[in-house]
Amino acid sequence: MKLMPVYSFLQGDLSKIEKALEEAVQSRSSLIEESSLHLLQAGGKRIRPVFVLLSGHFGKFNSDMMKNAAVALEMIHMASLVHDDVIDEANVRRGSPTIKAKWDNRVAMYVGDYMFARSLDIYTLFENPLAHKILANTMVELVVGEIKQIEDKYRFDQHLRDYFRRIKRKTALLIAASCQIGAIIANVDQEIHRKLYRFGYYVGMAYQITDDILDFTGTEEQLGKPAGGDLLQGNITLPVLLAIKDKDFRSKLEKVHEGMDKSELNDIISHIHNTGSIEKSWEISNQYLQKALKVLEELPKNKANKALRNIALYIGKRDH
Amino acid sequence: MKLMPVYSFLQGDLSKIEKALEEAVQSRSSLIEESSLHLLQAGGKRIRPVFVLLSGHFGKFNSDMMKNAAVALEMIHMASLVHDDVIDEANVRRGSPTIKAKWDNRVAMYVGDYMFARSLDIYTLFENPLAHKILANTMVELVVGEIKQIEDKYRFDQHLRDYFRRIKRKTALLIAASCQIGAIIANVDQEIHRKLYRFGYYVGMAYQITDDILDFTGTEEQLGKPAGGDLLQGNITLPVLLAIKDKDFRSKLEKVHEGMDKSELNDIISHIHNTGSIEKSWEISNQYLQKALKVLEELPKNKANKALRNIALYIGKRDH
Repeated sequence: MKLMPVYSFLQGDLSKIEKALEEAVQSRSSLIEESSLHLLQAGGKRIRPVFVLLSGHFGKFNSDMMKNAAVALEMIHMASLVHDDVIDEANVRRGSPTIKAKWDNRVAMYVGDYMFARSLDIYTLFENPLAHKILANTMVELVVGEIKQIEDKYRFDQHLRDYFRRIKRKTALLIAASCQIGAIIANVDQEIHRKLYRFGYYVGMAYQITDDILDFTGTEEQLGKPAGGDLLQGNITLPVLLAIKDKDFRSKLEKVHEGMDKSELNDIISHIHNTGSIEKSWEISNQYLQKALKVLEELPKNKANKALRNIALYIGKRDH
Repeated sequence: MKLMPVYSFLQGDLSKIEKALEEAVQSRSSLIEESSLHLLQAGGKRIRPVFVLLSGHFGKFNSDMMKNAAVALEMIHMASLVHDDVIDEANVRRGSPTIKAKWDNRVAMYVGDYMFARSLDIYTLFENPLAHKILANTMVELVVGEIKQIEDKYRFDQHLRDYFRRIKRKTALLIAASCQIGAIIANVDQEIHRKLYRFGYYVGMAYQITDDILDFTGTEEQLGKPAGGDLLQGNITLPVLLAIKDKDFRSKLEKVHEGMDKSELNDIISHIHNTGSIEKSWEISNQYLQKALKVLEELPKNKANKALRNIALYIGKRDH
């Protein structure tokens, strides 16, 4: 994701955040430190820190405080990734072996727990009770989203609203919280931090829908994992749900199982393309982005606003 | 653990806590709710809630606030148990199947995460930043303790201080935090809540040492799992470390592995008994209890103090 030109004025802060992330995982346990550093060094888009910083620019921007908020939110995200990889039996993420592949599931579980706990530890630096409340609530919803994803696996009779609720919990709320908490810590008025929350929510929904589309349109090289991987694991995403009305397709889908043949999977992926549900998914993603852009119009015009706008526009176009 | 007569005046609050625990795990996910209720209904000694409540009696006791603190701390404890069972490949706890056995490892991981997150959610009700700081720090140490336990498995060359540090993190700190946070929420002076922390720390150390002794002296019926289970999993506890100086015993120990023969294990257990290291372990546990009792002498004399004293005395005698 080549986002840098959009927010080059954040470069200094983002470098500090990278360093702070490395410091945050320092531990008296070499197992924690090595495995966490491995995860950090695999990179990532750091979009949550970017949203924290940009939202902070709507208020009184204190570099150190913003850094701490960004580090804590990114660590919650990383913790959920580590735990996700255990669930998904994933051995590769972003082209690198996952913690559970390089060490084992037990290490992955505790490294995730460690990151959760460390992020709380950093959070105690903030005195604003609303920031704490939002964070705790987001974490609860995040976990419920993960469990719902397990419950809803291979359930081909689910509704679109089940999907939207799931991605709200799994992705959109943490991005919304990043925007809102960044603003709260910069002491902005309630009216503004609530708008930034809404912006984050819409962008987060579009972001996850895009991810779910790319799982069917991306190449293995772009994705860092084979295409169709979500479906193979039983995760029913928007393109599948939109294509499911076709009875023929439905009966094909019911044969989906983890060890299925690659050519059968490719057949299903082609079918999804043929129904036009990829285009419909892009449309829905775009509707969320339009709502996000509309919120920005109601916010003060500044360089952060412009950067948020560019990020939203970028998400509508990204290919990996 | 028949502790009730010791703190019968807490009965009303403990019933409320039991109900609040059930309410706290209510969720829009039936999977979370069922598995969490299964865990709750398996029972438990609820010693952390008891310590929260008793410590609260040294200050201004607000029943609702104390209940919330007790529920949050018990849920952190339960979350760590659920994650422990994944690590330990445990299928039975307190005579009931574990969540990982009844559902699977993935459910156990997220139910643990859910309990962590819900406990934070409850914690946001408290405005005292010190309570938050202590809780976050305790959670970090708890996880480091768990990972150290993995790192130190089957390491027969470890020192006693490795063991003491590990049980401090794994057990004593959360009990110390229960005592201190209960007191902080009841607005007691710093001098008193620090003493209650120290009391909790000493009692927690004795409690874990007792647990580790009972693993070698208890029957399968008392323990709810086979004797020697810790050693079988490679966890090196105090009785083993005290017996390890014997070279003959050391060479036997190095043959310990997960699938080992029951009669070989029983041979090792007999050897531990013969070295007198069980008695030495009780002595060390007793030294911690004496320190705990000494702290109580420096605290105001009231019914809570008396109850804490009785609990400490009980721990020195418990057989399951």
